[in-house]
Amino acid sequence: MAGGIGSRFWPMSRTAHPKQFLDILGTGRSLLQQTFDRVLKICPADQIYVVTNESYIDLVKNQLPEISIDQILGEPLRRNTAPCIAYATYKIAISNPNANIMVAPSDHVIADDIAFEKAIVLAMDFTEKNDSLVTLGIHPSRPDTGYGYIQYVDKPVDNSDSLFKVKTFTEKPNLDMAKFFLSSGDFLWNAGIFVWSLKSIRAAFEKYLPEMHTLFTEGSENFGTKNEAKFIKNTYALCTNISIDYGIMEKADNVFVLPSEFGWSDLGTWGSLYDHTTKDKNDNAIVGKNVMMYDSMNNIVNVPANKLVVLQGLDGYIVVQSDDLLLVCKKEDEQQIKTYVNDVKLNKGDKWV
Amino acid sequence: MAGGIGSRFWPMSRTAHPKQFLDILGTGRSLLQQTFDRVLKICPADQIYVVTNESYIDLVKNQLPEISIDQILGEPLRRNTAPCIAYATYKIAISNPNANIMVAPSDHVIADDIAFEKAIVLAMDFTEKNDSLVTLGIHPSRPDTGYGYIQYVDKPVDNSDSLFKVKTFTEKPNLDMAKFFLSSGDFLWNAGIFVWSLKSIRAAFEKYLPEMHTLFTEGSENFGTKNEAKFIKNTYALCTNISIDYGIMEKADNVFVLPSEFGWSDLGTWGSLYDHTTKDKNDNAIVGKNVMMYDSMNNIVNVPANKLVVLQGLDGYIVVQSDDLLLVCKKEDEQQIKTYVNDVKLNKGDKWV
Repeated sequence: MAGGIGSRFWPMSRTAHPKQFLDILGTGRSLLQQTFDRVLKICPADQIYVVTNESYIDLVKNQLPEISIDQILGEPLRRNTAPCIAYATYKIAISNPNANIMVAPSDHVIADDIAFEKAIVLAMDFTEKNDSLVTLGIHPSRPDTGYGYIQYVDKPVDNSDSLFKVKTFTEKPNLDMAKFFLSSGDFLWNAGIFVWSLKSIRAAFEKYLPEMHTLFTEGSENFGTKNEAKFIKNTYALCTNISIDYGIMEKADNVFVLPSEFGWSDLGTWGSLYDHTTKDKNDNAIVGKNVMMYDSMNNIVNVPANKLVVLQGLDGYIVVQSDDLLLVCKKEDEQQIKTYVNDVKLNKGDKWV
Repeated sequence: MAGGIGSRFWPMSRTAHPKQFLDILGTGRSLLQQTFDRVLKICPADQIYVVTNESYIDLVKNQLPEISIDQILGEPLRRNTAPCIAYATYKIAISNPNANIMVAPSDHVIADDIAFEKAIVLAMDFTEKNDSLVTLGIHPSRPDTGYGYIQYVDKPVDNSDSLFKVKTFTEKPNLDMAKFFLSSGDFLWNAGIFVWSLKSIRAAFEKYLPEMHTLFTEGSENFGTKNEAKFIKNTYALCTNISIDYGIMEKADNVFVLPSEFGWSDLGTWGSLYDHTTKDKNDNAIVGKNVMMYDSMNNIVNVPANKLVVLQGLDGYIVVQSDDLLLVCKKEDEQQIKTYVNDVKLNKGDKWV
C-alpha cells in the first residue's frame, strides 16, 4: 500500500512526493524501496503488487523498475484501506485464486528484516492451513496515543504457539487508556500488516463489506484489460471510504494476532523518526550536511545538504526545510502539523502541500 | 560611506551583498538608495561621492545610475573610517578646495527626512562660518551598549543656539555606564554623521593624522587620472586602520555637536530593525509574504516572498532565510551572530558569509 500523502511529515513529505517515496532515514533507498527489498526475500518480484494513487504511478515505476506496470494498481480516489485491499485481492484472484497474501504499508520502517521475514513466513504458514485473518501486533514500548491497539487472548491457539486469538481492536486511545494498555501487558500495537489467504479475505469481504464485494466481483472481467482503469474509476466512486480494520478486522471472528518484535515504526510522526536517528551529544537528531547548533538540544533537524543552517537557543523543536518551505515547531506539538498543512492549503493554495 | 560588510545582519547581509545594498525595510529602495535620496535634497547629484569597497563598485553603479563612475571611490582594503574620509576629502580638494562637506554612513535609517535636512543645513551653515568639526548627536532613548556616546557642554556656543561644544567622546559603554549616561541627560549617541568644511577636516588630518595627510597629499596629482586606483592601492596599504572618531574627533578641540531628532537608527542589529518595523498583534515583526505563525510572539521574521514559512511555539526569536541560508537565534543573543558568522567562515568556507 503506497497511496498515503504523509501530511504529518510535511514539509518534507509533500502531496506530490509523499513520505513513502522519500529516503527519510538517509539510507539511499526510499521507504517504498526498503519495503520492496524486504518483501523480495519472501516473494518473487512478479508477485509483488503496489497499490497507489494514480498520480504516483510514475514515481513507483521509477523507484521500482523491477516490477511491471501491470503490478502497479492506480487508485483514482483515496478511499482508505478496504477498497485498496479489495482492488489488489480481486485482481490477484483472476490469476491466482489460491494465493496466500501479505499486505503491508510501504512507509514503515523495520529495523530487523530477518525477524520480519520469520514472522511473515510463520503467519503465512498458518493462513495457508487455517481460514483466518492474521494481523501483526507490536509489543508497545510507550503509551502511544497515535496507534490502534489489539487486545488478545493470552493462550496461543491450538495449532500454533505464536498466534493468538484477537479479543478486541481498539481505536486510538487517550493517554490514560494507553498507559493502562501498556501496563496490562495483553495489548499490542496494530501495525497494519496483514496475512491471509485470498479465499479467507474474499469471504470476509463478501460477509462484512458485501457491496464492495459485489462491485469488484461483477466487473472482474475488466482486470488486466484496457478497461481496468475505467472500471476501477467507476468502482471507487461507489466504494465506501472505510479502513480494513473497521470494515472487516473488528467484525470477523477468525482474526488472529502474531505478537512481533522487529524494530517496527510507522514513522508516522517526526517524533518516531527522532527515535530512529542517531543523535549528537546534545541529543539533536540532525539530517543535513551544513547544520551548526549553539545552545540547542533535543531537536530534530532535517534540511537539504546544500543549505547552511545556524540554530541557536532551541530545545525540543522540529526544524525542517524542504525546497521553498520551512517549518519550525515544538516537538510536543507535532500533532498540530496536520492542522498547519490544512491552513496552508486553505490560505496559500495547493502548491505548498 | 558604503564599505561595510554588515556581518551582524547575516545571513540577510552577505559579504558579497551587504546591508547597505539591501531593501531591508521592504520600501522598494535599498538603504544606500534611501541615503542618496535624502542627500539629494541638500546637494546636487554630481557632488555626491560614494566610498565603497572596490568589490562593490558595480553594485553602487547599478543602484545609483544618477552618479558618474568618477564619483564612486573604490577602497582596495577595509581600513575603517579615517582613510575612507581622507580619500574623499583629498579627492574633492582638487576640484573644490572650498567645499563644505557632509559625511554619512549609507546603511542607517532616518525616519524624518525633513528634520534631517534642517539639521544638516544648520550644521553646514555653522561649518561654513567657523573652523569646526560638527557631529550629529542623537538623544538616546534607551541605555544602548552598542553605541559610542558624546558628552556635551549644556550651554550652546555663542554664535548658534543649536550647536554645543563637545566635552568627551566615550567608546561603547557597559550597561551600568549606559544607564548613567541616559539618566544624566548630557550624553548623546554618536551617529557617525559629520559636517565640516574641507579646509577644517584637512587641517585636522594634518594635525592629528599627519602620515595619512602626507600620503594623500603627496600623490594628489593622481586623482582623476588613470593612475588613481593604483595610487589608492599603494596608499591604503600604508594607512593606519583607524576610525575618524578615534583618530581626529576625540583629539581635536574644535568639535561641536548638533543634538538631533530625526528618527535615526544605525540598523546595526536585528533588534534595531525590530524597532523600525510594524508588528502584528502578537508583536511579531514579519517581512515575508507567506509566513504563518502559531503560538508565537515577539519574533523577527525575515524571509523571501517566495518561501512558505510555518512557525510555532517561538517567543523572542530571529528567523531569517536568505537564499540557501537559515538562521534561527534568540533575539537576546543576537550579539553572538558575529561569532556564528566567523565559525561559518572557519568551518564551512567563504561562500556562506
